[in-house]
Amino acid sequence: MTFAPALRLYELAAADPALRFSPHCWKIRMALAHKGLRAEGIPWRFTDKEAIAATGQGLVPVLEDDGQVIHESWAIAVHLEARHPDHPSLFGGPAGEALTRFVNSWADAALVGPIARVIALDIHARVHDRDKAYFRQTREKRFGMTLEEVVAEPEQKLAALRAALLPLRLMLKAQPFIAGDAPAYADYCVFGMFMWARCISPIELLEPDDAVHAWRERLLDAFGGLARAAPCVAP
Amino acid sequence: MTFAPALRLYELAAADPALRFSPHCWKIRMALAHKGLRAEGIPWRFTDKEAIAATGQGLVPVLEDDGQVIHESWAIAVHLEARHPDHPSLFGGPAGEALTRFVNSWADAALVGPIARVIALDIHARVHDRDKAYFRQTREKRFGMTLEEVVAEPEQKLAALRAALLPLRLMLKAQPFIAGDAPAYADYCVFGMFMWARCISPIELLEPDDAVHAWRERLLDAFGGLARAAPCVAP
Repeated sequence: MTFAPALRLYELAAADPALRFSPHCWKIRMALAHKGLRAEGIPWRFTDKEAIAATGQGLVPVLEDDGQVIHESWAIAVHLEARHPDHPSLFGGPAGEALTRFVNSWADAALVGPIARVIALDIHARVHDRDKAYFRQTREKRFGMTLEEVVAEPEQKLAALRAALLPLRLMLKAQPFIAGDAPAYADYCVFGMFMWARCISPIELLEPDDAVHAWRERLLDAFGGLARAAPCVAP
Repeated sequence: MTFAPALRLYELAAADPALRFSPHCWKIRMALAHKGLRAEGIPWRFTDKEAIAATGQGLVPVLEDDGQVIHESWAIAVHLEARHPDHPSLFGGPAGEALTRFVNSWADAALVGPIARVIALDIHARVHDRDKAYFRQTREKRFGMTLEEVVAEPEQKLAALRAALLPLRLMLKAQPFIAGDAPAYADYCVFGMFMWARCISPIELLEPDDAVHAWRERLLDAFGGLARAAPCVAP
């Protein structure tokens, strides 16, 4: 573990600042651990736009690295890989980086919506009071319906999410991680989605006999159980 | 182009033996071209189980390579990579191979069904007479409905397919191919799905302004227009 005092990661937090629940911040938490780097995690709320105004946009993760400010999880991962080429690789080379981008796109395009349709109200219940109106307005606009309607018929929503995981389930018949024998950034892109739910919602997304469940367990155990030890709502 | 007289590829053909429409066979056609290898393509029909009985199963692609018989597209791709390590790589190394397996799983799990719901009747119309009952029975069992019901409400089916392509569309904002700057096996895994439709159905799957359409054009042009020149039904 390299001590990097200048590394600061702005992370989305709930009302309880210990609950760090952003899927994209979790991608970077795992990436930092993979690289053997420790960062100071700074709790940030949806409406704290001033604190990250230097990035010219309003979302986390934002990483401060020795005076440099990088935003957006993919850019941060690429930055960490370039800055620490002698540490374990996040991508496994140029082909791995390009293919990992597809996996990241898959996680964002195929999983964010189905998981939000399960946990949107749990998020609303736990975000900071000053974030509640922002969260409701932006998400109701995105979905074109109220948050209550977004999460209606929860069994159907869970079934849709589990169906969306079929590509991962199929792949897991052949190898234990998306990156092969050991996890890398492609796995963290998908695992971040599950940490999002675990940190903020009591709802269990997966059936215990699902191969995706076993994969998630392996990642909860990675890096000395870093993710498993994180404060969370999940029982 | 290496002349490899012992390389023979059994490929699914329609009644017209020139129409080679299997998505999985197309993955291998493109992989062979990527490796600079030429194979003798042998037309095969669904019910020609005897011809490939040596593989212990009943599906193509089957590759005969200098006395070895390999079946299943992934195993064939891995075989080609191992046998011709000095030719252009299909995967770009071990990390690339593992991640490409995820892309292949995504294509099989997320695209085969939605495309079949568009073209199933077109396939039935064009397969060999001796395959028609086999095709109808196996597919109606798989979908739990008649082929006519499978393709009902075609606009909805097209919309579902186009929605399923969102991960690829998102990725294409950042790079021209799934494998990065140039195509590799990950691209062929997905492109094979489009060649399946192009060879056997007049229905256009993509809107002309879709980034996936432009990506497909680039692959139709690859290897001197190999795929574009293939006999097909598409207008």
